[in-house]
Amino acid sequence: MKIIEFSELGDPAKVLKLKEQPSQPPAAGEVRVKIVATPIHPANLLQIAGQYAGSPDLPSVPGGEGFAEVLEVGEGVTHLAPGQNVLLAGAGGSWRDEMTAPASAFIPAPAGDPEQLSMIAVNPLTAHLLLSRFKDLKEGDWIIQSAANSAVGELVVQLAARRGIRTVNVVRRENLIPALKSLGADVVLTDGPDLAERARAATGGAAILLGFDSVAGETFERLVGTLAYGATIVSYGVLSGQMPQLNLATVIANDINVRGFWLAKWYETASPDDRQAAFGTLMPLVAGGQIKTRIDSRFPLEEIADAVTRAAQGGRDGKVLLTPHAS
Amino acid sequence: MKIIEFSELGDPAKVLKLKEQPSQPPAAGEVRVKIVATPIHPANLLQIAGQYAGSPDLPSVPGGEGFAEVLEVGEGVTHLAPGQNVLLAGAGGSWRDEMTAPASAFIPAPAGDPEQLSMIAVNPLTAHLLLSRFKDLKEGDWIIQSAANSAVGELVVQLAARRGIRTVNVVRRENLIPALKSLGADVVLTDGPDLAERARAATGGAAILLGFDSVAGETFERLVGTLAYGATIVSYGVLSGQMPQLNLATVIANDINVRGFWLAKWYETASPDDRQAAFGTLMPLVAGGQIKTRIDSRFPLEEIADAVTRAAQGGRDGKVLLTPHAS
Repeated sequence: MKIIEFSELGDPAKVLKLKEQPSQPPAAGEVRVKIVATPIHPANLLQIAGQYAGSPDLPSVPGGEGFAEVLEVGEGVTHLAPGQNVLLAGAGGSWRDEMTAPASAFIPAPAGDPEQLSMIAVNPLTAHLLLSRFKDLKEGDWIIQSAANSAVGELVVQLAARRGIRTVNVVRRENLIPALKSLGADVVLTDGPDLAERARAATGGAAILLGFDSVAGETFERLVGTLAYGATIVSYGVLSGQMPQLNLATVIANDINVRGFWLAKWYETASPDDRQAAFGTLMPLVAGGQIKTRIDSRFPLEEIADAVTRAAQGGRDGKVLLTPHAS
Repeated sequence: MKIIEFSELGDPAKVLKLKEQPSQPPAAGEVRVKIVATPIHPANLLQIAGQYAGSPDLPSVPGGEGFAEVLEVGEGVTHLAPGQNVLLAGAGGSWRDEMTAPASAFIPAPAGDPEQLSMIAVNPLTAHLLLSRFKDLKEGDWIIQSAANSAVGELVVQLAARRGIRTVNVVRRENLIPALKSLGADVVLTDGPDLAERARAATGGAAILLGFDSVAGETFERLVGTLAYGATIVSYGVLSGQMPQLNLATVIANDINVRGFWLAKWYETASPDDRQAAFGTLMPLVAGGQIKTRIDSRFPLEEIADAVTRAAQGGRDGKVLLTPHAS
């Protein structure tokens, strides 16, 4: 089998190596699968570069989620069978063409697009949790988000639209507006100093109850300025690398609640019921094509350097997938 | 009767004027009282200077709380009688020697020190709400606060000590340490860049679950750095006038919750039950002398310029009170 591995931290295009290893037959309670599709996320690249919270034990195989087909089951595994499709659920190290791991690392997959299903456990889950964990939103309520054209941003738009939650979406360039509108965005605005005024005009002065930011810096500051009394802003990324000045006078006068969200911690602490509820909501939506993540390109493992280079580029049009067995 | 009034915003020592007006007999449902003691708070001075949220209708009489004695009751007032002691509960305009207002503006006062009781509705209430509204603290839990030698800070120390909640108190000067220790402070530290390390050393690495800050700027940033995973920091003032840089990477990784607290809004929105619960807890503690606010000095209304000048001075040793009828 082929695996992608790094033995030192650094530029992913340089430190990632393709290695061949013998296939590993499943021991008792284990399952061997063939990886069909596994995405490249910004967090993967940051971790390889040593710029993410926590450092991996080296050598390490990157990747956190994917879609696979069962090849072989070990003794005592009765709920999975060869030929069945599964999702990788948190075993890690998914950038490979085969994986052998305990059966609990895999969830039976519903019928549906394998590529879309390969990406369910990070971005759709983040969007779903952002929308459900911080405020009890009702139909007609308004929210605002930055980086609205990111994978999470587009999923927030789609999930919100399904629930009748109205969205103000902040982007950096005007040419990103039509695509978001077609996904169901109510308002799309370019970022800028007068964001609060334009948001007020575009929403007819509606109260914006919840904000999501993954940019930090001035964008975070401007989002805080658009929020209604008692609103919450959730930070789930610091793409700009800039820390915002927090206007505490506004926090006090408008009773603003600043929160953080980190999916890795959710996985550590979520109860089985929490997980089942989250995936139970998302699985049919992704399997049925009601919510979608755009895909920019697909690469075989042999082209890992090109794949991570593309994934790090600003202008791409969606996610980059590794598809080890595509012809 | 004498009242303190301002007709323009500006330096309190200059714009405040003493005026004589005829006494106002109580109409039906009203009560006329003699003001025994009423404090000067920083928020009063900011409002007179035009530096506080919301501008008063001019001319205006400052002051928000006090201790008074009933002189006369209007028709239909049966629960208050001449000679009875009362607290001013939100009628405003307390810097005067007499006040006539609806009976609902007064609460019967318990037996106890009139000066301490005159100050119950702002600082002790703030300290009580900071300690009770944001986290469900248990005996042995640790909290941290800046400006620990402020009136609110000292009341937080006293209320926390009574509940067995342990406090890390941050001050600007070493000479403030002994007084806080004598009130029950567990740890007192001077502010500085290595605050988080010193807090860890002093608490034996205990998890600090809640922080209170009224300084803003770098002090707020340093307090955030001392907090445990899942902790909350509450901003209730911006004494330094400096806005902090918020480390969103820490907010995300440590699940830090940033909140604001503004007492004026609490008064606007608290239910009668909320108020009764809060005052029901505090009244016996203040009346019985179990929690105390330090008093720096007392002034008659005629010396209002000296009084507000003293209240604005950094080196004073407690609150400044107006005592219109002291001999």
